[in-house]
Amino acid sequence: MDIEISEVGPRDGLQSIDTIMPTADKKTWIAAQAAAGVSEIEVGSFVPAKVLPQLADTAELVEYARTLPGLTVAVLVPNLRGAQDAIRAGAHKMSIPLSISETHSLKNVKRSHEQMLEEIARIIELLKDIPVATRPKFEVGLSTAFGCTIEGPIAEAKVISIAEKVVALGVDEVGLSDTTGYGNPAQLKRLAQGIWDNCGRDKLNGVHLHNTRGQGLANALAAVDIGLTTIDSSLGGIGGCPAAPGASGNIVTEDLAFMLEAMGLKTGIDLNKLLAVREQVQRMLPNEEMYGFTSAAGLPKGFRQAG
Amino acid sequence: MDIEISEVGPRDGLQSIDTIMPTADKKTWIAAQAAAGVSEIEVGSFVPAKVLPQLADTAELVEYARTLPGLTVAVLVPNLRGAQDAIRAGAHKMSIPLSISETHSLKNVKRSHEQMLEEIARIIELLKDIPVATRPKFEVGLSTAFGCTIEGPIAEAKVISIAEKVVALGVDEVGLSDTTGYGNPAQLKRLAQGIWDNCGRDKLNGVHLHNTRGQGLANALAAVDIGLTTIDSSLGGIGGCPAAPGASGNIVTEDLAFMLEAMGLKTGIDLNKLLAVREQVQRMLPNEEMYGFTSAAGLPKGFRQAG
Repeated sequence: MDIEISEVGPRDGLQSIDTIMPTADKKTWIAAQAAAGVSEIEVGSFVPAKVLPQLADTAELVEYARTLPGLTVAVLVPNLRGAQDAIRAGAHKMSIPLSISETHSLKNVKRSHEQMLEEIARIIELLKDIPVATRPKFEVGLSTAFGCTIEGPIAEAKVISIAEKVVALGVDEVGLSDTTGYGNPAQLKRLAQGIWDNCGRDKLNGVHLHNTRGQGLANALAAVDIGLTTIDSSLGGIGGCPAAPGASGNIVTEDLAFMLEAMGLKTGIDLNKLLAVREQVQRMLPNEEMYGFTSAAGLPKGFRQAG
Repeated sequence: MDIEISEVGPRDGLQSIDTIMPTADKKTWIAAQAAAGVSEIEVGSFVPAKVLPQLADTAELVEYARTLPGLTVAVLVPNLRGAQDAIRAGAHKMSIPLSISETHSLKNVKRSHEQMLEEIARIIELLKDIPVATRPKFEVGLSTAFGCTIEGPIAEAKVISIAEKVVALGVDEVGLSDTTGYGNPAQLKRLAQGIWDNCGRDKLNGVHLHNTRGQGLANALAAVDIGLTTIDSSLGGIGGCPAAPGASGNIVTEDLAFMLEAMGLKTGIDLNKLLAVREQVQRMLPNEEMYGFTSAAGLPKGFRQAG
């Protein structure tokens, strides 16, 4: 596999819509997408059910998804408590978001940078007692890394400096998140290179991109060009973007997978099966809009995946 | 200017919708977009009015657009007759499409490759009698270069071989057209490099991209990365794509200009003015859908163009 597409629809997509998908449907979705060759799926988030009732079944989903062969089961955790839940459930990977914009962090999770770093340190302490082979991989998602809707532009030096701090604490990896859809390809390459130069080449491999201004796939291309190997995306762009009608929130898995496979990069995904999963999930969410273009246009005539 | 955005909405956009825009409105659009800093506009096509009544006023538009300071006035010509009209009207640039898929060429313009090459040779003969300084620049658009909805995949060697033939005839430039939205960034770079290697570095500078599978901006990024300097696009993606609901036909000028300017590449375009032109044109075409995301999301908070 050249590029790993990490499906975040069951977490980032479903947390953004009002419909609560039944657990059985979520399992069908996760199993179908794993069967289409998607090798990593973020199945939920360990947040209190009163905050996100859409994701209240995350523990059950982790347990189920672990039975699917070859699948990396990822979850989001907002804090130490969530990390404890993720470890207990047996997630293979857990990510905690840390907003580079401190204003956004205070508003969103009511924590300063110092408080977030302390929480991350506590999670790392917790992980130290577990054998590496059985503990989840722990990643910090650097959100608002490309700009903030409250603060505006975010200095690249600040992103790198915070990446250094969390890597020094001992996290396995950091990820770059364009939470606001402000990012551009040149900025993405500079940020990735800056983190590699200051934190080590192995400490950053993935990006989480939004399509708010239509730049999602161009940014994904920049990520691949510079050598990043994991790209988050959401089936049918589920969740959308309230700021831009017609824009998906996350980039659309089908369009991304088509781009990469057409370029000859192996994702492990069978495009025809993936397009069928989209239709299946659309039937489960009849009142939710799905995004992206490849599904409607179809694969090009005579298109063959390198296999 | 680092990258020239060539606006094709008044030609490619308007020929694809049923609404016939009044000539006065077209002039308003062209003048407003030129005032926003767009330096090249394809104002129409010299095809018979019975074929495309939407573009019957092309000669008048060329004459008008020539009065706008600094604007390169481009037109499409389907044949020798169209080229004669373009020369008479005083166009600065004229392009003739030649479909790399001969099946498509026969179906679309009822001409084989040999017949198309003869027509191009006749146009070049015609141009020889005119002083270079006053004649239009003459380009051949290599359409279906990335694949054909009838033939399927198109061999890259065939694109390069036809490019060589038309360059040998004496055209000023060729352009790469992804008529079908089949293209991917890796293919684009290979095709450009192949044409440069075989025809000369100065013979290919521009691409015409479609967004049928959502790949438009990623392909535009690949074009810029490899060193192409002219990219066609359409304001609001006017014209759409019948194959993919929600997809623009051409890539969307606003999203493209935002990407390039955000990357620090100079297009000469004032983004705020461009977004205002979009609103103005939408008011002129109240029943036509416009596409793209930057207009709805707005420019990022605190975003400043390098100027």
